[in-house]
Amino acid sequence: MKDEKDAKAPKSEKTRTLILETALRLFQERGYDKTTMRAIAQEAGVSVGNAYYYFSSKEHLVQGFYDRIGAEHRAAVRTVLDRETGLEARLAGVLTAWLDIAEPYHRFGAQFFKNAADPESPLSPFSPESEGPREAAIAVHREVLEGSRAKIPDELADILPELMWLSQMGLVLYWVYDRSEGSGRSRRLAERGARLTSRGIALSRFPLLRPLVRELHELFNDFLPGLAETAAARRRT
Amino acid sequence: MKDEKDAKAPKSEKTRTLILETALRLFQERGYDKTTMRAIAQEAGVSVGNAYYYFSSKEHLVQGFYDRIGAEHRAAVRTVLDRETGLEARLAGVLTAWLDIAEPYHRFGAQFFKNAADPESPLSPFSPESEGPREAAIAVHREVLEGSRAKIPDELADILPELMWLSQMGLVLYWVYDRSEGSGRSRRLAERGARLTSRGIALSRFPLLRPLVRELHELFNDFLPGLAETAAARRRT
Repeated sequence: MKDEKDAKAPKSEKTRTLILETALRLFQERGYDKTTMRAIAQEAGVSVGNAYYYFSSKEHLVQGFYDRIGAEHRAAVRTVLDRETGLEARLAGVLTAWLDIAEPYHRFGAQFFKNAADPESPLSPFSPESEGPREAAIAVHREVLEGSRAKIPDELADILPELMWLSQMGLVLYWVYDRSEGSGRSRRLAERGARLTSRGIALSRFPLLRPLVRELHELFNDFLPGLAETAAARRRT
Repeated sequence: MKDEKDAKAPKSEKTRTLILETALRLFQERGYDKTTMRAIAQEAGVSVGNAYYYFSSKEHLVQGFYDRIGAEHRAAVRTVLDRETGLEARLAGVLTAWLDIAEPYHRFGAQFFKNAADPESPLSPFSPESEGPREAAIAVHREVLEGSRAKIPDELADILPELMWLSQMGLVLYWVYDRSEGSGRSRRLAERGARLTSRGIALSRFPLLRPLVRELHELFNDFLPGLAETAAARRRT
């Protein structure tokens, strides 16, 4: 079974990649709203039916884009996560690696942000549809914590990765509108944010802060519908 | 001088209000991007030149909208601020009053959010152009704190109002996309946010938390350009 799958993978994977890359290019050139599936298929030299076989809508193409950015990011963070043990350096490295990888898509980011900003849109990072890439990105933050020298109280270990990922979403929002040379301001924000986070976590050894962290986490979970559903699904498994 | 100004005010104030209300109605009906100054003047029954005399661009109309929402809000919060002394109740009252006043403009809010989300747009609540309504809204939060029984350390008294206003902007963003009946979810978020804030402030009597609050504030000031300029201007006066 496995061999059969591996043998088949390359060709379909190539077509999938071709469609995705063509779509990203057209989104950049024409804007997300003005690019049709028909135009994507035509430019990629595949039939419209074939394009729909791989991506059943434009929204699915954006999900494919999230998957790709996420996979590139997970590969890029290995260097820093295998080497650094300081929490601040680990987190700064992870955030900076994301900015490096996302930079070629900077114009595209601003293009579709107005769709992704709606938490009920399938394109929102908080939507049930984005669960896969979201969970993978949260897992990176779990590793940031677990591989560091920082002492994390057990009761916070479960919820901090999600809060750190939420801060990363804040950085992404900032970056979408950042017009500084090479997104320099976003880079400084990543470093400053990493410092603030590691200092906040250092303070969590004082038990008086823990109820506040728990309450903050509960608030996000209650009010971001996608997150709540993901958390419920996780509890069931 | 004063009498002369008062005698002149009503007519020009009426025309200004008429243009603003016509614009808000057209933004709701046709969308912000599709509404021209010419169409607004025509619908209001004034000349295009007259419309431009009162509002030199569509952006200025949105600033006029911010001013109006802000003035209505300041009037509405008197009841709760003159009566309540508990910090949580004062803050929850102020946030809920904003949701009450903004509700008629809910559809309009989502319409122009994609412009206002860019921190460098004059329509952003963080822009230098929005300084007036922003400062007035921050002053409301200053009064929330000062009139409460809560003990606020001196070194945080200056920065907490701005941080509380930033949280209010988070609530506004949530509300823009809230489709629950009567924005019920946003109302619950306002109450829960008020509770979290008052608990956090209660913890600020522990000196170990203060550097963290200061660092958080510095981070926002450094990375939101409009805020930094406002803070610099305040220091100069």
